[in-house]
Amino acid sequence: MNAIYLDNAATTKVKPEVLAKMLPYFTDVFGNPGSVHAFGRSAKLAIDKAREQVAKAIGANASEITFTASGTEADNIALIGAAIRNQKKGKHIITSAIEHHAVLHTAEHLAKQGFDVTYLPVDADGIVSPETLESAIREDTTVVSVMAANNEIGTIQPIRELAEIARKHGALFHTDAVQAVGSIPINVHELGVDMLSLSAHKFHGPKGIGALYLKKGVRVDALEFGGSQERGLRPGTENVPYIVGLGEAAELATRGLQEKAERVARLRDKLIDGILERVPYSRLNGHRMRRLPNNSNISIRFVEGESLLLTLDMAGIAASSGSACTSGSLDPSHVLLAIGLTHEIAHGSLRLTLSDETTEEEIDRVLEVLPNIAQRLRKMSPLWEDFQFRDKNSDNSNDKNSGRKEQLCTLN
Amino acid sequence: MNAIYLDNAATTKVKPEVLAKMLPYFTDVFGNPGSVHAFGRSAKLAIDKAREQVAKAIGANASEITFTASGTEADNIALIGAAIRNQKKGKHIITSAIEHHAVLHTAEHLAKQGFDVTYLPVDADGIVSPETLESAIREDTTVVSVMAANNEIGTIQPIRELAEIARKHGALFHTDAVQAVGSIPINVHELGVDMLSLSAHKFHGPKGIGALYLKKGVRVDALEFGGSQERGLRPGTENVPYIVGLGEAAELATRGLQEKAERVARLRDKLIDGILERVPYSRLNGHRMRRLPNNSNISIRFVEGESLLLTLDMAGIAASSGSACTSGSLDPSHVLLAIGLTHEIAHGSLRLTLSDETTEEEIDRVLEVLPNIAQRLRKMSPLWEDFQFRDKNSDNSNDKNSGRKEQLCTLN
Repeated sequence: MNAIYLDNAATTKVKPEVLAKMLPYFTDVFGNPGSVHAFGRSAKLAIDKAREQVAKAIGANASEITFTASGTEADNIALIGAAIRNQKKGKHIITSAIEHHAVLHTAEHLAKQGFDVTYLPVDADGIVSPETLESAIREDTTVVSVMAANNEIGTIQPIRELAEIARKHGALFHTDAVQAVGSIPINVHELGVDMLSLSAHKFHGPKGIGALYLKKGVRVDALEFGGSQERGLRPGTENVPYIVGLGEAAELATRGLQEKAERVARLRDKLIDGILERVPYSRLNGHRMRRLPNNSNISIRFVEGESLLLTLDMAGIAASSGSACTSGSLDPSHVLLAIGLTHEIAHGSLRLTLSDETTEEEIDRVLEVLPNIAQRLRKMSPLWEDFQFRDKNSDNSNDKNSGRKEQLCTLN
Repeated sequence: MNAIYLDNAATTKVKPEVLAKMLPYFTDVFGNPGSVHAFGRSAKLAIDKAREQVAKAIGANASEITFTASGTEADNIALIGAAIRNQKKGKHIITSAIEHHAVLHTAEHLAKQGFDVTYLPVDADGIVSPETLESAIREDTTVVSVMAANNEIGTIQPIRELAEIARKHGALFHTDAVQAVGSIPINVHELGVDMLSLSAHKFHGPKGIGALYLKKGVRVDALEFGGSQERGLRPGTENVPYIVGLGEAAELATRGLQEKAERVARLRDKLIDGILERVPYSRLNGHRMRRLPNNSNISIRFVEGESLLLTLDMAGIAASSGSACTSGSLDPSHVLLAIGLTHEIAHGSLRLTLSDETTEEEIDRVLEVLPNIAQRLRKMSPLWEDFQFRDKNSDNSNDKNSGRKEQLCTLN
């Protein structure tokens, strides 16, 4: 496909060098790591190496890494595992209103099991303030979970401050760093977190493998039961090729990350500025500076998000209107509602997420194509017609511009 | 590696043709199946096709197949999911004493949660008799789980009869068919099961992907929470390459299965007969006829299993002493104890499991090497020395042979 892929927050292409490292483990070194013979031992060695690579990528020790089948599974083990393990101490857990469904729906499940869940609100940029956590945390709070960076709007949270508050109150702090690892530098010790989730397919590794960092001494209950793999915390024959791929992708993604992130952020800024400039009534969602280097999320008023995606797709541009995991649903994104957008504006949102393979030519092409598409779709919108009509008949000719400034471009 | 791989019950090599089908989904058709753009839609189509392939392999409908990260996960969702879902109806579940740990440890977890668990005993061949189930089943029994074929001794269970009893009493019937699918013909309708677990890596697919068959209308609770993938029963971005691999491996394994199974069984019989003939004080574990075509499990008295494995490994033969999942543990196999072996005899057991790639030359080589290794190891065994001493000093010179016949070769 020669299309322009700008949906890297949904998933990324496996890098050829990652795939190359994985390949021998399908057909050659294919033993079960639990077996004592040479086939098994070689597979076991490969897992040990990958565990070191993943640990190094986030500043942890290998013994603190548990391989899981996904970021979702890592989130589930962290939240349910820690909540159940500590339920005698208390049954209050805290998370934020803009978490990924892997955390939100897990928290809702715990609520049904008798846990008390507080969902911290966010400000207009999507930031969880340390003060909000400080006032919500209680004596019976056992787990606090706030994502490192949001998957839809890219906002980066003040994890260090939040984790410090949890620590002070004796609660465990978990961060869903699925969007952050491989995109921005992450060090578990600097952040001071107890648990962290990551997923290979967000940084050019394969889909179907993740890891949970559990700080030395942190114990959580298992959700599934079987063999003694991953110390019984995540049983089932190890997915050796993917574990190898995760290790390799983690090493590759974090090597020279600062430089790569700066290059990507420059392209992202060109994209954001270009769209805001060329598409009237558009606004950036998420914090302008404290955001993932590869994330742009823009609401284009009077345009229906799904139509925008399909039209972009026909023009060879792959984008998203929010989290891919919720596609098929017509509900507007809970993240966009949480930062205060109306249903209408939330529905017209577009997420374009870059990778370190994105080229300047691709960005130029989007800036060329998108404004025309937005204009075309708007002409078909009854809301746009209404708006134009009201605008023309308005006494105050500054209404449109002032409204635009306040409501749509507050972040520029 | 040019070694002889006879540990196919632990895991199998991915067939090159399976890998070839998977490859495009890593680097080319790499989209998130939840995305609306072309990258996503192509990935979604691949999943749909694989679901059909897996369904066809076991005589089910595609809508009855849920992809999981492993056979272990399928077992966990079936058991915990069905037990929790039906707990208002009753809290009694039934399984057998020789299940894989993915079922046994899950049942133990449920027992800790207040469920009453009955473990059905097996006969000397490892068979669960329908009568045993009939007398154990109660009004409050909601789930019965008996494996289709045992992973250690290969014994095939009378699943149709067992499932019929469960149905008659209004309980759901689950079978862990992880060892059976791809090895013997399996049809969910002929068996009459409500739930069935399978795993790709047991039939030349990749490790880290499985499936749960849920008969139309059977509802179970999810264990993990997140996106709406697999109808919310198993959330997390779909592992597209492995799902494709599972579909392809299932199709390949079940094509011409009867002929392949007969060929493998012939080699297996040559192996079993050859060992029993050439290694004194050896016995076959599991039923002689009702066993998986690729399974041989032999106890060699006065030989320590682990030493046997290591020596075979040095001779280039990869074997197992039971389930790979329990390696590292010094406890004797719960399966071998359940069929009545003493600790000592259970410890000296050897599992050699074939694949359809196993050659007659490889079997000949094992028959050439193994008797000498067994003899060599025996000479180092204090138990063997004692036995020889007792034998020589015995009044009845027939003791040795009669003991051998009764105790060690009952199945020949």
